[in-house]
Amino acid sequence: MEMASMRLFPSMFAALSPQTSTSSLSTLPANKLILPRKRLYRASKEAVSLLHSAQEIEKPIAGTSFPLQDVLEAQQFDRDLLNSIFEVAQQMEKVEKDSTSSRAHVLDGFLMATLFYEPSTRTRLSFESAMKRLGGEVLTTENAREFSSAAKGETLEDTIRTVEGYSDLIVLRHFESGAARRAAEVANIPVINAGDGPGQHPTQALLDTYTIQREIGRLDNIKVGLVGDLANGRTVRSLAYLLARYSGVKIYFVAPDVVKMKDDIKEYLDSRNVDWEESADLMEVASQCDVVYQTRIQRERFGDRIDLYNEARGKYIVDRKVMDVLQPHAVVLHPLPRLDEITIDVDTDPRAAYFRQAKNGLYIRMALIKLLLRGW
Amino acid sequence: MEMASMRLFPSMFAALSPQTSTSSLSTLPANKLILPRKRLYRASKEAVSLLHSAQEIEKPIAGTSFPLQDVLEAQQFDRDLLNSIFEVAQQMEKVEKDSTSSRAHVLDGFLMATLFYEPSTRTRLSFESAMKRLGGEVLTTENAREFSSAAKGETLEDTIRTVEGYSDLIVLRHFESGAARRAAEVANIPVINAGDGPGQHPTQALLDTYTIQREIGRLDNIKVGLVGDLANGRTVRSLAYLLARYSGVKIYFVAPDVVKMKDDIKEYLDSRNVDWEESADLMEVASQCDVVYQTRIQRERFGDRIDLYNEARGKYIVDRKVMDVLQPHAVVLHPLPRLDEITIDVDTDPRAAYFRQAKNGLYIRMALIKLLLRGW
Amino acid sequence: MEMASMRLFPSMFAALSPQTSTSSLSTLPANKLILPRKRLYRASKEAVSLLHSAQEIEKPIAGTSFPLQDVLEAQQFDRDLLNSIFEVAQQMEKVEKDSTSSRAHVLDGFLMATLFYEPSTRTRLSFESAMKRLGGEVLTTENAREFSSAAKGETLEDTIRTVEGYSDLIVLRHFESGAARRAAEVANIPVINAGDGPGQHPTQALLDTYTIQREIGRLDNIKVGLVGDLANGRTVRSLAYLLARYSGVKIYFVAPDVVKMKDDIKEYLDSRNVDWEESADLMEVASQCDVVYQTRIQRERFGDRIDLYNEARGKYIVDRKVMDVLQPHAVVLHPLPRLDEITIDVDTDPRAAYFRQAKNGLYIRMALIKLLLRGW
Repeated sequence: MEMASMRLFPSMFAALSPQTSTSSLSTLPANKLILPRKRLYRASKEAVSLLHSAQEIEKPIAGTSFPLQDVLEAQQFDRDLLNSIFEVAQQMEKVEKDSTSSRAHVLDGFLMATLFYEPSTRTRLSFESAMKRLGGEVLTTENAREFSSAAKGETLEDTIRTVEGYSDLIVLRHFESGAARRAAEVANIPVINAGDGPGQHPTQALLDTYTIQREIGRLDNIKVGLVGDLANGRTVRSLAYLLARYSGVKIYFVAPDVVKMKDDIKEYLDSRNVDWEESADLMEVASQCDVVYQTRIQRERFGDRIDLYNEARGKYIVDRKVMDVLQPHAVVLHPLPRLDEITIDVDTDPRAAYFRQAKNGLYIRMALIKLLLRGW
Repeated sequence: MEMASMRLFPSMFAALSPQTSTSSLSTLPANKLILPRKRLYRASKEAVSLLHSAQEIEKPIAGTSFPLQDVLEAQQFDRDLLNSIFEVAQQMEKVEKDSTSSRAHVLDGFLMATLFYEPSTRTRLSFESAMKRLGGEVLTTENAREFSSAAKGETLEDTIRTVEGYSDLIVLRHFESGAARRAAEVANIPVINAGDGPGQHPTQALLDTYTIQREIGRLDNIKVGLVGDLANGRTVRSLAYLLARYSGVKIYFVAPDVVKMKDDIKEYLDSRNVDWEESADLMEVASQCDVVYQTRIQRERFGDRIDLYNEARGKYIVDRKVMDVLQPHAVVLHPLPRLDEITIDVDTDPRAAYFRQAKNGLYIRMALIKLLLRGW
Repeated sequence: MEMASMRLFPSMFAALSPQTSTSSLSTLPANKLILPRKRLYRASKEAVSLLHSAQEIEKPIAGTSFPLQDVLEAQQFDRDLLNSIFEVAQQMEKVEKDSTSSRAHVLDGFLMATLFYEPSTRTRLSFESAMKRLGGEVLTTENAREFSSAAKGETLEDTIRTVEGYSDLIVLRHFESGAARRAAEVANIPVINAGDGPGQHPTQALLDTYTIQREIGRLDNIKVGLVGDLANGRTVRSLAYLLARYSGVKIYFVAPDVVKMKDDIKEYLDSRNVDWEESADLMEVASQCDVVYQTRIQRERFGDRIDLYNEARGKYIVDRKVMDVLQPHAVVLHPLPRLDEITIDVDTDPRAAYFRQAKNGLYIRMALIKLLLRGW
């Protein structure tokens, strides 16, 4: 068991963005995510110090403050913190199920601003549903890049300093890597990164991990096949990173040549003694794995090389044949949206878990919003 | 009196879209709208079976479930169902009037997603106001075509399967005919069609009919003049269809030659023994009718033929002269937006009912949302 | 002390829009803003007549109706009315601070429609936050020009007549001067002008004045430096106008030659015996003033003359050197968004009050919304 202090100040690692050079993985200072200018927020009054009361605590004490002030990167979450969040997420399934017979009042009077500089209806509605299922309210903008003062040249920092005056929590989607970090550095209210360009999308990484826990029943001793665009897909990179927190994990990389998993993640997995291998045989991998995680090949990554795109796109398709070799307890995941990399006829198979996965995004976001605003 | 089973499974007819060929009107299977995959939704627990308890019931029993799972087409509504909905709509007038002194809690904790692939501020705000006046909450997107995963190639079905996880009801506006039907086939929550391209816009048809009931006091034995673009206007086609449910109705068609009412509706009216005639004399029709229903000539229907557009547009205008021959008890309706086919000086005439008609859209939508989510 | 009747029917002055010719300043009829068609709204039932009960009242009686039916122009507000509104705004600071521990129910069941024909995320979120902090609900459109029936040629008046049926209050942002007035003339519910093109933005003028009151402690006997684009900036023009309601005010105009303050405002200040002078020495002015109000030079005002824009833009910058001469009790204001006319290193100076000013916008809007819908 890790000490509580490790849970409160999780060790920090390199950014997961594809641009990160391998060498940076072990050189960042451990306290990089402790933002000096952030003041203690509303929950502080109830924050009986978890740090000093005990060295070994298995579960957070109800009413104590959440160790994170913002949710910016997958690296903020160690194994204990993930487990505790997943327990809250599971409670949220009940809160959501009961919401129409008995509306929740957990976040009565709280206001969340969803500031989307890049439209993403799915992610935005998921966050907004999460807030409203908890009884909170939402201010929304679905196209801040075009509709806000950003178009007049205002800095993100100035926008944040204004919007924090109107709300209790900011959910930021931005087209620039590092934007969420910059927002968190000036904001006196919590910031959740809902995707910053090629950078991070931590709530997606958490919901992916939570889905494996819910579907397979464990995160230790599992075999996971990551399929598709492994070079550019931030979701598979973050997922590989979080899986390294667990023991006995085996990862298979199944990718067309032009979009193979990059060395930084492979070296990171090596450093954590995580077993991995590359494979060109999706059928073989599917027959071995507990989880097949399929991703979309993104056309925009290929520029003029439509030929390479088409070759990559058609290479690894999850279809009925793949499902035929998949083990009965195994599942297929996908971050969505899906084009034709999973055929429609797979949808009715009970092992097709991608829409349940999308729904889990709601529970994870409910949990994070609740924890940031009200503590454990 | 019809039997309850007829009310619960209203006979189905051809789609009202202009593309529908005449011959299809009587060939569609009667159960086309019973969606096999739709599971019983939340209201099911209170659904004491109306079907088996009585063969002849004049009014639905409070607390029993609404016979429709979705609102997709005007053809779903027979005379008894319309009357019952109109009674609920009238109760909604009081709920809305009292909302600021005593906020309604009928839909406390319910979430409605308004998914608009085609912007339509008027319709969207009407639905959202309806939901909020009942105490419910809304997730909204006003330009899903551009801002959502649809832009990345996701199918409507996948979007619906995701969004249904975040909400209790989907209101869909789409640019393709049949989109609402497709959405309803995959969704496990109710879907309301808020207009699908050249297809259907059933809540408009209902509010038009409700307005005649409220303004004239009856739907039997009325004379209605339909004026303007009768070839392309889905509202006048749907209205003609619903009026055929009542007895003693006489319909006048007053349209420029290029946008005359099509044969399929005329033949349908014949099959229901509804009296109709075409006329080129708006003054004569206006002096005879209880209702003059004016519509906008849509320029986009005329392509390069601006000359035909201009001729059609100026031909039948409702102005003070028309009002002078209109009977004292009669009214002018219009689905809005209005350009110059009704002159501004008509607005102050108490018989100009088009803004009251727009307001009735709120009551009809309140009624439908309430009925779909909570039953009678 | 003014008589109550003066507070209820504040004397009216010319529009503040830059287009207004000087000569019109004293020729407009005094009752121009009394809209004859407006009916008494919901608060009317509680409106014990303030007019007849007393000739001299210092504070409005709780529960009596607000004297304004709409908020359209800065000219509607005289000194007594401003003071009374500022007291309500200050109470709103507490309402907002307590909102997450004890949600306000002042406007439970009320619906506000924010109709933005010109996107302005900052202003829209400020209004919507204000409504929600009071317990009310919001219908929103962030791009009505493109997404609504306006694109089909509908008049603003028709849109307003429809939207007023869905809500209890309309907040209108429009690209045309005079739009808010036109909306108020047809609406039977209150309208707040959230900026109508080059016209008015009265809530900005009120929050500027309120900020001076809050930061300096008084509005009489103050020295204010208006800096930047004084020719086109509607905020500085409105502020100059409102400051003329107080005594002992001295105003300095510091502007590049091409965007100097226009004669109409200078003549108006003369008519009210307000002392003003022009200066080219920002350092000197800053050392004298209680308030330095900086504004953005708007590139779009200069057309092809980029050279003039660049000259104007760099001429008067508020930086550390300016702060060094600024008196300890003085403050720097800015309507935001800010480009480089205030350098970033000024932000941490406690006298940099522009983000507090933005926050005050919330309190002023809470106060106005509450007063329009519920009275004093």
